[in-house]
Amino acid sequence: MYKKDIKVLDCTIRDGGLMNKWQFSTELVKSVYNSCVEAGVDYMEIGYIASEGQFSRDEYGPWKFCSEKDLRSVVGDNNTNTKISVMADIGRIRFEDIPPASESVIDMFRVACYEHQIHKGIELAHHVMDKGYEATINLMAVSKVNERRLDEALQDIAESRVSTFYLVDSFGSMYSEDIQYLMKKYTEALPGKIIGFHGHNNQQLAFSNTIECIINGARMLDATMLGIGRGAGNCPLELLIQFLKNPKYRLKPILQSIQDYIKPLQQEIDWGYFLPYMIAGSLNQHPRDAMAWMDSDKKNDLVGFLVDALEKIEDLE
Amino acid sequence: MYKKDIKVLDCTIRDGGLMNKWQFSTELVKSVYNSCVEAGVDYMEIGYIASEGQFSRDEYGPWKFCSEKDLRSVVGDNNTNTKISVMADIGRIRFEDIPPASESVIDMFRVACYEHQIHKGIELAHHVMDKGYEATINLMAVSKVNERRLDEALQDIAESRVSTFYLVDSFGSMYSEDIQYLMKKYTEALPGKIIGFHGHNNQQLAFSNTIECIINGARMLDATMLGIGRGAGNCPLELLIQFLKNPKYRLKPILQSIQDYIKPLQQEIDWGYFLPYMIAGSLNQHPRDAMAWMDSDKKNDLVGFLVDALEKIEDLE
Repeated sequence: MYKKDIKVLDCTIRDGGLMNKWQFSTELVKSVYNSCVEAGVDYMEIGYIASEGQFSRDEYGPWKFCSEKDLRSVVGDNNTNTKISVMADIGRIRFEDIPPASESVIDMFRVACYEHQIHKGIELAHHVMDKGYEATINLMAVSKVNERRLDEALQDIAESRVSTFYLVDSFGSMYSEDIQYLMKKYTEALPGKIIGFHGHNNQQLAFSNTIECIINGARMLDATMLGIGRGAGNCPLELLIQFLKNPKYRLKPILQSIQDYIKPLQQEIDWGYFLPYMIAGSLNQHPRDAMAWMDSDKKNDLVGFLVDALEKIEDLE
Repeated sequence: MYKKDIKVLDCTIRDGGLMNKWQFSTELVKSVYNSCVEAGVDYMEIGYIASEGQFSRDEYGPWKFCSEKDLRSVVGDNNTNTKISVMADIGRIRFEDIPPASESVIDMFRVACYEHQIHKGIELAHHVMDKGYEATINLMAVSKVNERRLDEALQDIAESRVSTFYLVDSFGSMYSEDIQYLMKKYTEALPGKIIGFHGHNNQQLAFSNTIECIINGARMLDATMLGIGRGAGNCPLELLIQFLKNPKYRLKPILQSIQDYIKPLQQEIDWGYFLPYMIAGSLNQHPRDAMAWMDSDKKNDLVGFLVDALEKIEDLE
């Protein structure tokens, strides 16, 4: 018996681009977009939005900026049932650079922020809502947040006009019991709001934690094709689509893009279940050290990474 | 707060050998054994036990047979805290070929059987128990078993002297709610018995299903290094050890074997998250077609495999 009110958001390009600075071919991005449309995926998050000058165009591909021109080169006017989403980091987009929603193919802004930025996050979300967009707030790194401060942040969200709030397992460190605990906290603190989930797959739990969130009331779910994403990656879209059983979703177009474009990327980018990412997740650590290790000639020295990671944690304490 | 009564069984060689006909180097098997001992793993299942002549020694490596001589070449007299387990398929080992436990380094027989073989399974388990071994019964392919017949089989197990019974997700098709349902059924039908779990990772749920089993009372847990095993493989031992938090377990020796021997095997054997295995699991199908597809030149034709799999299911119905 499927849940009709669940929405699926594909963030293949946005999160996958964290591994290659968004240097995807236009054909790849078009294929992912077309597959999302054909598969009935509700939202496609195509990248981060940033004002010109925030980053170098020489270093980063177009999906670090999501200019209206680049967006339209892929989605045209997007006369489809798949909405277009962009992610905004605090301080990277000037309010005056955001056009009214009626002039943009963007449907939704997702505001990513840390607990100490929650007021700036709500301010940006309200700003884009006033311009006619949908908005969410995605609170990152909650597994490191002091609980009293988290409760305060949730109260601020509750009092805001933002309709959707995300549980984010930034480090891939959460087990099912963590998910149950936080979903209960979020739903009780935020009556009437939609809760979303964005997982990371360090411990092979991104999909199962997504299921746990569904059982506990989450209604907006992130996933990527073949789980591509930063470090260990995300919940695989193909698994989620098969699980949801909603006949509006179709697996075949997703498999086609994976076959033609995403699977071949594994020759260039090491996302997925690699043990430095697993160790970082199990120790509730940011993946940056694991990513640096994976980029070095010590990539296969797993014991070395564990020893190093444990020493760093003990140095802090 | 860790659960002291949980036992971990490594079946790296036994289940991994299904992918290479147990053609492992002696050094590799010794490394896995030494790592299990150093890591505090409770049982190491080193292979299947079979009488001579059941299979060709030219085709299969020693761990398809587990002769006493081959076992001792790796474990000596096994004066360690890690017990040695073998798996027995019905009809592959003659009762008279099984020595008394006092003359063997084997500590435990695990009897794998289908529902229609349950009486033969119990007979073999009772036979080895009478010779002084521990015994378990692992009921395979339960996701395809008619519920009335399953209830009868459970009643037979309840009335037997076999102390440990395994929930087995042979096709990697189970979600957390399936696990909850079957764990409740098994524990209610089998008062006083230990329940074990053996998962497959087709849908990246082997580890999370193992956690779900722990929460629901399972106390004997199978895992393999880097998840090596048939098709999509098993619950990764390194994830399970990190989760259990029991200080008697140590991660480092496991990482050492993975680094030195198991990870390099990925160059030769395609176990893990490959989409033909995922599709088979999500459709509750035996992995044999997916394994044949992965061995063919159609390996990367994911859409073709899905179309083929769906056609076969419809042909049956």
